[in-house]
Amino acid sequence: MRHTLSILVENRFGELARIVGLFSARGYNIESLTVAETLEPEISRVTLVTTGDDRTIDQIVKQLNKQIRVLSVTDLSAQDHVEREMVLVHVNAAGETRQSVLNLVEIFRAKVIGVSQTTLTIEATGERSKVDALLRLLCAFGIQEMVRAGTVAIARPPVEVNHQTPVRELVDAKG
Amino acid sequence: MRHTLSILVENRFGELARIVGLFSARGYNIESLTVAETLEPEISRVTLVTTGDDRTIDQIVKQLNKQIRVLSVTDLSAQDHVEREMVLVHVNAAGETRQSVLNLVEIFRAKVIGVSQTTLTIEATGERSKVDALLRLLCAFGIQEMVRAGTVAIARPPVEVNHQTPVRELVDAKG
Repeated sequence: MRHTLSILVENRFGELARIVGLFSARGYNIESLTVAETLEPEISRVTLVTTGDDRTIDQIVKQLNKQIRVLSVTDLSAQDHVEREMVLVHVNAAGETRQSVLNLVEIFRAKVIGVSQTTLTIEATGERSKVDALLRLLCAFGIQEMVRAGTVAIARPPVEVNHQTPVRELVDAKG
Repeated sequence: MRHTLSILVENRFGELARIVGLFSARGYNIESLTVAETLEPEISRVTLVTTGDDRTIDQIVKQLNKQIRVLSVTDLSAQDHVEREMVLVHVNAAGETRQSVLNLVEIFRAKVIGVSQTTLTIEATGERSKVDALLRLLCAFGIQEMVRAGTVAIARPPVEVNHQTPVRELVDAKG
């Protein structure tokens, strides 16, 4: 099963190596990993996607929690959450194909962030399946380079339903 | 100086720990790191941002290149490139403040990807400075949670200028 872990950790060198080491020591591949700062300068957040049986992931989570510099570990897969990926792509878009590429950009709500005579540079975000679908379609034109960001994930805030809540406010505005 | 390294590596467990270890062994902090798959299933790309003097970074790059499973290392800071970050934010947006938050979403070309009675979940992408500016403005409303993705970066394709190139095609369509 695919697990998305969100780990808050003190921003010290060596910590990331220790976290990553826990997975490789068990032969667990890290499918995607992203580390970036939080609102507090001393604390970083690691978002990590791995595939494994629930029991082993549970053990890894317990071991992570034992590390002094790890402040919290959440297995987001166990709760309602949103996942997003980002990709940057240079795609061939010379002559007549350019319009076809631009049409895909619009359909996928992506952005053109660079242009040369023969290529377009596209930034796209969305759920993993959406990013995969766009990449499959762009492959037909010829992808010159692609850089994908690791998955980021955030828990959904609890929805407080009451009689005053208009239905449209409860509907998810999925990107 | 800030360096953005783009590293192609064989997708084996242990490799990431080794790469990260090279930096922590020198006491170099990794400011941001993202690992994700490429178009080839056996190969992952690591995008890593670190701050350090050019000579030490040069040494690290050389050591990275010596690792068997590292296929290529590019210091993008030395060439024309595009960097992008992504952030997911739960921000307070109850009652009258909701419209103000939505205005910011529009100005920053961000997306609303979730909504509850009292919050909005926003996905934003852009250059680091743009993401920072949006976060500073959203702080005024109260950020409940924020998850930032590591920087991703892609080299710009060379622009071939000739007399037939219309000027507007050479202008950067910055997001």
